[in-house]
Amino acid sequence: MRAEFVNPFLASLLNVLKTMASMDLAPQKPRLKRDHVARGDVSGLIGMIGPTTKGSMSITFDESLALEIMQRMLGERPNGINEEVTDMVGEITNMVTGGAKRMLADQGHDFDMATPAVVSGRGHTITHKCDGTIIIMPFVSEHGQAFIEICFDS
Amino acid sequence: MRAEFVNPFLASLLNVLKTMASMDLAPQKPRLKRDHVARGDVSGLIGMIGPTTKGSMSITFDESLALEIMQRMLGERPNGINEEVTDMVGEITNMVTGGAKRMLADQGHDFDMATPAVVSGRGHTITHKCDGTIIIMPFVSEHGQAFIEICFDS
Repeated sequence: MRAEFVNPFLASLLNVLKTMASMDLAPQKPRLKRDHVARGDVSGLIGMIGPTTKGSMSITFDESLALEIMQRMLGERPNGINEEVTDMVGEITNMVTGGAKRMLADQGHDFDMATPAVVSGRGHTITHKCDGTIIIMPFVSEHGQAFIEICFDS
Repeated sequence: MRAEFVNPFLASLLNVLKTMASMDLAPQKPRLKRDHVARGDVSGLIGMIGPTTKGSMSITFDESLALEIMQRMLGERPNGINEEVTDMVGEITNMVTGGAKRMLADQGHDFDMATPAVVSGRGHTITHKCDGTIIIMPFVSEHGQAFIEICFDS
């Protein structure tokens, strides 16, 4: 895992939620996954492949935060996690990864993105299985927590 | 989604579980995802990128089936889904995708695999977000159910 991969993902999530949902998340200090387990209710997952590395990324939201983002982006608030919410989480996953991809390309790290998948289930956890260190980036807001996790083969 | 992508993944899972765990799963008829929701307790997910398409694949297991595979592969049966089980599910995900990749390469469909991620959480569901049809392949056994889901951009 390369430390310089952390900030592009962190900055990209803040930017996407600010732009799309007028929402400010407060980023906490990134940590190594072994010290911390991220639980959430809905997650977007995506695979990435470059000429020199490959990896995976997830963004996990509390249900309350996902529903608030839904309301701010689309003006409607479903009672729970439905197909519109998973579509939104898939789109956010694409946008955050695409933003990080552009920043990392400027630094000479190129990768292609697979298509995302969205996990729905109360209190689930995700474990990225790659050779490198897993980095977890927590975010807090008055509506709930979010976590980005990234892992790249070293 | 291309119909010729179905059988390589189906055959590869049967082969991996037969070889690694002496386990025979009974494949059911593949279906379109819109008719069916796959719930499970532990899933491996992986992204795939080729020159002409990209997509994602998941394998979802009931906890009881995952623990039985664990016992047969490694001779130990944990009380629940722990790190050894998620490691095993990540490895199965890599092996099944690698097997399908070799079969599809023989048919002229090349793709690279990202690294897998494993989801743990009782009764979770996965929604693949790609442009093509989602195909679900159910498998049954006396120890529980498994599902493969694949989706490729068309």
